[in-house]
Amino acid sequence: MPPPAACAGDGVDAITTPALVIDLDAMERNLQRMAAFAAGRGLRLRPHAKMHKSARIAALQVQAGAVGVCVQKLAEAEALADGGVQDIFISNEIVAPDKLARVAALAQRVRLAIAVDSPLGVERLAVALRAAGAGLDVFVEIDVGQGRCGVAPAAAGALAQQVVAHGLRFAGLQAYHGRAQHLRAAAERESAIRHAVALARAAQASITAAGIACPLVTGAGTGSFAFEAASGVYGELQPGSYLFMDRDYADNEPTPQAPRFEHALFVKSQVMSRGEAHAVVDAGHKSHAIDSGLPRVHGLDLEFANGGDEHGILRPRGDALPALGDTVWLIPGHCDPTVNLHDHYVVLRGGLSKGVVEAVWPIDARGCLS
Amino acid sequence: MPPPAACAGDGVDAITTPALVIDLDAMERNLQRMAAFAAGRGLRLRPHAKMHKSARIAALQVQAGAVGVCVQKLAEAEALADGGVQDIFISNEIVAPDKLARVAALAQRVRLAIAVDSPLGVERLAVALRAAGAGLDVFVEIDVGQGRCGVAPAAAGALAQQVVAHGLRFAGLQAYHGRAQHLRAAAERESAIRHAVALARAAQASITAAGIACPLVTGAGTGSFAFEAASGVYGELQPGSYLFMDRDYADNEPTPQAPRFEHALFVKSQVMSRGEAHAVVDAGHKSHAIDSGLPRVHGLDLEFANGGDEHGILRPRGDALPALGDTVWLIPGHCDPTVNLHDHYVVLRGGLSKGVVEAVWPIDARGCLS
Repeated sequence: MPPPAACAGDGVDAITTPALVIDLDAMERNLQRMAAFAAGRGLRLRPHAKMHKSARIAALQVQAGAVGVCVQKLAEAEALADGGVQDIFISNEIVAPDKLARVAALAQRVRLAIAVDSPLGVERLAVALRAAGAGLDVFVEIDVGQGRCGVAPAAAGALAQQVVAHGLRFAGLQAYHGRAQHLRAAAERESAIRHAVALARAAQASITAAGIACPLVTGAGTGSFAFEAASGVYGELQPGSYLFMDRDYADNEPTPQAPRFEHALFVKSQVMSRGEAHAVVDAGHKSHAIDSGLPRVHGLDLEFANGGDEHGILRPRGDALPALGDTVWLIPGHCDPTVNLHDHYVVLRGGLSKGVVEAVWPIDARGCLS
Repeated sequence: MPPPAACAGDGVDAITTPALVIDLDAMERNLQRMAAFAAGRGLRLRPHAKMHKSARIAALQVQAGAVGVCVQKLAEAEALADGGVQDIFISNEIVAPDKLARVAALAQRVRLAIAVDSPLGVERLAVALRAAGAGLDVFVEIDVGQGRCGVAPAAAGALAQQVVAHGLRFAGLQAYHGRAQHLRAAAERESAIRHAVALARAAQASITAAGIACPLVTGAGTGSFAFEAASGVYGELQPGSYLFMDRDYADNEPTPQAPRFEHALFVKSQVMSRGEAHAVVDAGHKSHAIDSGLPRVHGLDLEFANGGDEHGILRPRGDALPALGDTVWLIPGHCDPTVNLHDHYVVLRGGLSKGVVEAVWPIDARGCLS
C-alpha cells in the first residue's frame, strides 16, 4: 500500500500530490444537516457507506444519529465490521454459496441485513444461515425504476412468503431508484420518486395480501431523499454522497425541500508541465473517477480536459492558467469510485488555503469487490 | 487490503467474483511475441509497467529480453524497486521538490531515468541529485502529437543544453504519441507516427546543432510500435498493453507489420440477479475501468450495459442470457486503470473453462499515484 500523502500536523502545502483530501469543516456541516433533516421528520437514517468506505466516518454518522450503514458488497461489510461498525445492511443480492457462508459468519458478529430478489437466493441464504446457526434481516428488493435488480412490485408478496417459509426474518422492502438521482430538474426527480412511491405501495399491498407484515421501506439517495422522506411510505433513508458532494450532484438543480450540502472532497493536484495554451496537472483518471464526467477545478474558471490515466489538462476560460508547480484543487465528478482509487483520506481542518492536516484516515473497504 | 479471490491450486470455478484473472498461457505467448519482435529488429524493449504494476511481471519481461521497464509515477517506481526491479524509467515529469528528493534516493538503489520538459524541472532535479550525490539518465520529452507534456521539437536542443549545463546525464528523447494508439485504421496510425518520427528527427537535429549527442529516442505503444520500429529513429519501444490486450486495442484494425496479441486479462463475474429481459452481473466500474468504453463479454454474444459502480447489465443479442449464478467473463475496455482497481492477479493455467490457479500475484504498484 502506498504511504499516505501527508501526516497529522502538516500544513496543507506539504500534502504530496495527487491526494484525496477531506475538508473536515465542510464534511461536518453536511453530516449535521442530513442528521437534522432525518431526525426532524422522525425517519431512520442509514447512510450508504459504499460511498466513503470508512469505518471512522461510519462511526461519525452513527454518533450523529444514524441507525447504521448500508454497503453494496459483502467484502465492504466485512471490512467495516473489522473497523467496529455494528449495524450493516448489504443492500444488494448475493447468490454464491461461498459468499453466503461468509454472510452467515458475519451475521454472528454484527447486526446484519441483506437484500434478496430471487427464490434461489432466498433458498441458498437460508441454507447458509442454518448451517451457521445465524440470523439476519432480509429485505425484498423491488425495482422502482432503476431497471437493474429487484422483483416487480406485484411479485414482492410471493417472495416475502418464501423468506418467511424458510424461517428467515422478513424486514421489509429495499426500494432504491438510482436513475432518479441525477435527473437535473428537481421536478423530474420528484416525478420519478412519485412513481417509485406508488410502486412501493403496490409492493406493500402485495405483501399484506400474502398475510405478512411489512415493517419498513428503505431507500433514497442524495438527489431524491426529500421526496421519499415526504412520501409517508419510506421509513429509512440511504443517502451517501451528501457527505462529500461531488460535481455530478452539484450539477443538479437543488431540491427546495432539502438542505444544501457543500463540496467536502477534493483531489489536490499540481501543475507538472506547462504549454503555451495549456497546463498539465498530475491527476488523471487513476486519481478521480470519470464515469460521471470530468472533475471541476475548484475556485478557478478553467476547463479541465481528460489527459489520460495520470494527467489532467487545463485550458484557460475566465481565469488565466496556473504556473508550473502551482496547486490545483479538483472536485471529483463522482465521489464513490474516486474514493475507491485511494488508500487514505487526508483530513484537513481550517480550509484548503491555510488548513492543517488533522488526521489521516484509512479507506478501510477500498477495493472490497466481492 | 481485501483477501485474494482464490488460492494456488484452486480450480477456476472456485475463484470468488469479481476477480481479475490472467490467462497465463495467453500472456506468455504475448510476452514472447513482443520480445521476438524487438529482438528481431535489434531494438531495445522497455515495456510500460504503468499497465501491469507488477514486479513479478516486470521480471518476466526482463527475463524475456527487456532492458527494464517504464513507469509513469515515482511511487510506481518505488514499489517496483521494492519488488526487485533494477532498471526503471519514469517517462514523465516531476517538479515537486519533495518528490525529487525521493527520486534522488531511489537513484541510489536502482538504475533510474526520468523525463524533463522545463528549465525549472531540470534545475530542481539537479538540486535534488546534488544534495543526495546521486545520478540518473535524463530524457527530454518532446510533444510528437499527444498535446500533453513535452517541449516543441525545436526547443529540445536548448533544454538538453540545460540538462548538460547542470551536470546531468542527457540520455535522449522521450517521444510517445498516445493519441495515435487508438486511431482505428492502421493507415491512420502509420500516418500519425510518420509525423511523430519527423518531429523526433527535428528534435534530434536541434540537439545535434547544440553540440550534444542524442543517444536514444524512446517511445511507442501497443497500437503503433511497428511503425516506430521501422522508422530508423526510435531505438527503444515502450508498449505495455500488448501483454493483456484489452477491448479497446482489440477494436483497432490490426497492424499488418505487428504480431497478433491475445486477450489475457479478464474479470470473472457472476450473474447475481435475473430479470425477464436482462441479467445483472456483480462487476461494475469499480472492478473494470470504463474510460475507454465498456467491457466485452467473452465467448458470448451479449450486450453489456453500464450498471453503475458494482453491477453490469447483460441483454441478449446473438446468444441467450445466462442463468442466475452463471459465470460471465469480461474483457476490460482498458487494462491499465482496470488493473489499478485490484490488489491481486489470479493467475490461471489451462484456460478459462478448466484451468487451475497457478499463483496469486500482488499488484505491487496499485494505487501508487504520487
